[in-house]
Amino acid sequence: MDKYLSRRAKELVPYVPGEQPIGGNLIKLNTNENPYPPSLKALEAMKDATDKRLKKYPKPECEPLRKAIALVENLPDYTYVYVGNGSDEILAFCFQAFFDDDKDVLFPDVTYSFYPVYCALYGLKYREIPLDKNLRINLDDYAGESAGIIFPNPNAPTGEYIELSYIEALLAKNMDKVVIVDEAYIEFGGESAAKYIEKYPNLLIIRTMSKSHSLAGLRLGYAMGQPHLIDGIIRVKNSFNSYTCDTIAQAGATMSILDTEYKNAACAKIAETRDKTAKKLHEIGFELTNSKSNFLFVKHPEIDGEYIFNELRKSNILVRHFKKPERISQHLRISIGTDKQMEKLVEVLKKIVAEGQH
Amino acid sequence: MDKYLSRRAKELVPYVPGEQPIGGNLIKLNTNENPYPPSLKALEAMKDATDKRLKKYPKPECEPLRKAIALVENLPDYTYVYVGNGSDEILAFCFQAFFDDDKDVLFPDVTYSFYPVYCALYGLKYREIPLDKNLRINLDDYAGESAGIIFPNPNAPTGEYIELSYIEALLAKNMDKVVIVDEAYIEFGGESAAKYIEKYPNLLIIRTMSKSHSLAGLRLGYAMGQPHLIDGIIRVKNSFNSYTCDTIAQAGATMSILDTEYKNAACAKIAETRDKTAKKLHEIGFELTNSKSNFLFVKHPEIDGEYIFNELRKSNILVRHFKKPERISQHLRISIGTDKQMEKLVEVLKKIVAEGQH
Repeated sequence: MDKYLSRRAKELVPYVPGEQPIGGNLIKLNTNENPYPPSLKALEAMKDATDKRLKKYPKPECEPLRKAIALVENLPDYTYVYVGNGSDEILAFCFQAFFDDDKDVLFPDVTYSFYPVYCALYGLKYREIPLDKNLRINLDDYAGESAGIIFPNPNAPTGEYIELSYIEALLAKNMDKVVIVDEAYIEFGGESAAKYIEKYPNLLIIRTMSKSHSLAGLRLGYAMGQPHLIDGIIRVKNSFNSYTCDTIAQAGATMSILDTEYKNAACAKIAETRDKTAKKLHEIGFELTNSKSNFLFVKHPEIDGEYIFNELRKSNILVRHFKKPERISQHLRISIGTDKQMEKLVEVLKKIVAEGQH
Repeated sequence: MDKYLSRRAKELVPYVPGEQPIGGNLIKLNTNENPYPPSLKALEAMKDATDKRLKKYPKPECEPLRKAIALVENLPDYTYVYVGNGSDEILAFCFQAFFDDDKDVLFPDVTYSFYPVYCALYGLKYREIPLDKNLRINLDDYAGESAGIIFPNPNAPTGEYIELSYIEALLAKNMDKVVIVDEAYIEFGGESAAKYIEKYPNLLIIRTMSKSHSLAGLRLGYAMGQPHLIDGIIRVKNSFNSYTCDTIAQAGATMSILDTEYKNAACAKIAETRDKTAKKLHEIGFELTNSKSNFLFVKHPEIDGEYIFNELRKSNILVRHFKKPERISQHLRISIGTDKQMEKLVEVLKKIVAEGQH
């Protein structure tokens, strides 16, 4: 029945997100969710918004939420902010709004695997720029002709953070095209490039509330940049769906953004657990990247990655194993849970390593 | 700063939804919202879902909601149902999934004005098929070569309903392409084409919960068709955003779908108010289409449409005036509110007509 599909739809190879198992006593460390609950104030705001007003369409411009983000991020006003139904939706709009098909979009060769999927969806060409031998992005490699540049900072799934001075140099060298910095994981230890927004008309920053705000279930992401870039995203959005963010999500996200104290404490706790866990995994023989995100990216020099993945699964611990590309086929990406969950992980990994080395 | 926009984004002329004024004592009859509140059971379900579980991603396949819809619509199982972040999003995915650019997409010349916007967004060609002199769709005009066919039943903004026998004939004559019936307003008096789904592999039906379920603020729509068509939409969705429906919306929509008694009573009440109001407007000289939806489409033979729109606005009544195309520039689309709101509307229109005829 493929005969009903458009040529493009036939060719698509959709993105595959991490497994979302139902029920069970699983320790779920495979999709970079936050182990702590969302802000209580945000939950209250959502309950308060759940009433007869839902019969009306949501605020199409989402001003209160955009204003809250502008306030917290020190931006001049809400026209520097776009909010959408998850950062993936915003990324999709950006690929349509800012990239043309006559040149390549550039992104790292090991990175968020949705980027090439967007290119296929919108008929764009791309070129993957290899990470260096330490699995790091070298921004000097992104020079020359391109349709635009996108990379996460910290990168996923490596967790490696790029110092801002390199990003500023890249922005200055690419004033004629949009440079998108995907800061999904910035709040776990990196410094945001948001401070360059007023200086660089080509800088667009993407954030998600799924990780740092514990709101993966709510679908809320945002973009920050100069108003002409925000307007470009809005043009595409208004040609796709007039109302992408529902009333309850707008209310909850606004309160969560304003509850900076709670979010900062949760992110700091996760960073502490990450560093503690990294140390322990190093001690039992794992090799780790220098992750500044809410996950670790590890491999064991002697034991097969898929074997470890399967052994963890037998012990009810779910992590992420990408298989492809080849150079990360031995790695596992392990989301940071609570201290207790990570202690259990280390304990099980110790056993797997001891048995695997026999 | 247009230099940062892609060629396609530069050319877009986005859809403009009806105005969403903030505050005031406005009687808002401009965006076809339902005047009655959502199901109380649905509101309860949403509050119950608003807790720490929001830290996890939503169910990516939305099975409980899809199962509820399959049950209520007498479909074999949930693989016949797709759910999305509003029916507009689903329509956008369908234009990508099923239409190619080598032939024209066909739709009526007066219809939902988002259809040509989707064509522009995805680089598709289209041909608008004129309504007949009574502003009705004649499906015999949709014969011959095309990339696919889409029309609302009842049509918007005319409200005119097409008998199912005509739709079945169209399906039978176009077995090689997808025919999309946009049933945003079907629950206010028409019969759904859903009964043809098992017979016709080319039929796709789109619904929204914004109108009949009083959930415009929640952003939930769905599609019904044979599994190969549903899978086509899912292919595009999974190349765009892994999770389009948030946890709270899934919970609320599921309960609202199952609370058929409440929804049916609200829709029947709206249909009754519509027919009563139509009779009164006819008595004071208005010409009306035969609307089976939750709005009336009216014009006065002697008084300018824009003048009436502005006079209503002065009396704090907001309706929709499209201006374009020319043949509906004298019409107003008036959403059906409560009996009390419609009595006020009739009272004000009586005055406007009396003054306008002086």
